[in-house]
Amino acid sequence: MEEKEISQAVISRLPRYFRYLGELRDQGIERVSSQELSDIMKVTASQIRQDFNNFGGFGQQGYGYNVEYLFQEIGKILGLDQNHNLIIIGAGNLGQALANYGNFERRGFLFRGVFDRNPQLYGKKIRDVEVQPMEQIEQFVKSNNIDIAVLAIPKTEAERVAEQLVGYGIKGIWNFAHVDLNVPEEVQVENVHLSDSLMKLSYNINRFHAGGDGRSDIPQ
Amino acid sequence: MEEKEISQAVISRLPRYFRYLGELRDQGIERVSSQELSDIMKVTASQIRQDFNNFGGFGQQGYGYNVEYLFQEIGKILGLDQNHNLIIIGAGNLGQALANYGNFERRGFLFRGVFDRNPQLYGKKIRDVEVQPMEQIEQFVKSNNIDIAVLAIPKTEAERVAEQLVGYGIKGIWNFAHVDLNVPEEVQVENVHLSDSLMKLSYNINRFHAGGDGRSDIPQ
Repeated sequence: MEEKEISQAVISRLPRYFRYLGELRDQGIERVSSQELSDIMKVTASQIRQDFNNFGGFGQQGYGYNVEYLFQEIGKILGLDQNHNLIIIGAGNLGQALANYGNFERRGFLFRGVFDRNPQLYGKKIRDVEVQPMEQIEQFVKSNNIDIAVLAIPKTEAERVAEQLVGYGIKGIWNFAHVDLNVPEEVQVENVHLSDSLMKLSYNINRFHAGGDGRSDIPQ
Repeated sequence: MEEKEISQAVISRLPRYFRYLGELRDQGIERVSSQELSDIMKVTASQIRQDFNNFGGFGQQGYGYNVEYLFQEIGKILGLDQNHNLIIIGAGNLGQALANYGNFERRGFLFRGVFDRNPQLYGKKIRDVEVQPMEQIEQFVKSNNIDIAVLAIPKTEAERVAEQLVGYGIKGIWNFAHVDLNVPEEVQVENVHLSDSLMKLSYNINRFHAGGDGRSDIPQ
């Protein structure tokens, strides 16, 4: 089969398609045209068809896409037909928030373990999972078939911990630390840089309320 | 002055430039060339120059950019030379995690209030700020010059609350609810869709370990 690299921009849009298709499905809607999808998702119909063509087009035939089929297929492409075993490193506020977010389980992301360096947290239960010392990570990853590690620790520790995780054979890192990790290309990293996101919001507020393009403050 | 729309892709990269320049500055480095920035940031030098040209270029002169100047200027463009008053809606795990994230304050995002619908949380203090009932939001936003509301509530409530916030004159919404909000264009929305991010990670793990492009499961 011809191998074609699909751009990360297309991939970034897939979860959103998946989400909207899930909602249509929950409403009992069986078919949807690219134009209808376009109206509810505020993306052009041509963008939608172009995105779907990366995956063979999903067989739209005049009367539109089969919602259930499209939902399932995009789910498969996203790997949601398989379970992923996940651990969380860092049992602070963010780590606990993520651990408690039951929605992930619905999509096959199973919360298996949580680790912290603070001895006062050892044994504390988060959704029936006990916080363990960092020293246990290696053993735990290797004996529990852990795919994904969530880094909810400060950036000062994140690089070192990521390096260890790579050594233990982790496949993916969901990184909330405010640093870009250097890992080998066989380890996938998805960053959630919250400060970056907040700064982008700040930019957009500023730009709008300055009525310009954000350059007004900059000496020429 | 000629008004030029700057693409959201460029804007998304600005916080990352800002972060790296801050680190260079903290290391006492005074000048940096686009090639050096390119090496540490893993973006091409031409991309960097192109991005900076959107804002007048920041005066690189053969021997590179002045780190402090560039850091300050990008900070200004991002609106970080001004304070933003921020409230958090939802005092669950995620709301508390965000409230406790002191780093935002360093960038001028001041945590002023937190609101929840659960009476058991009223009066509970998060960093010296008491959780208040949702009914107080209107009064609080109007009398405390609140710019930004953080939505850390379930998607079922998010649409309605966002609509109210728009009515109270909020300028920006940092949305963690798993839904795309419909707000007027004068209100800026920045989404952090955690599930989408995790699905993207799942896709990339899958693709890499299938050795293909993710299409292998899809019947042609």
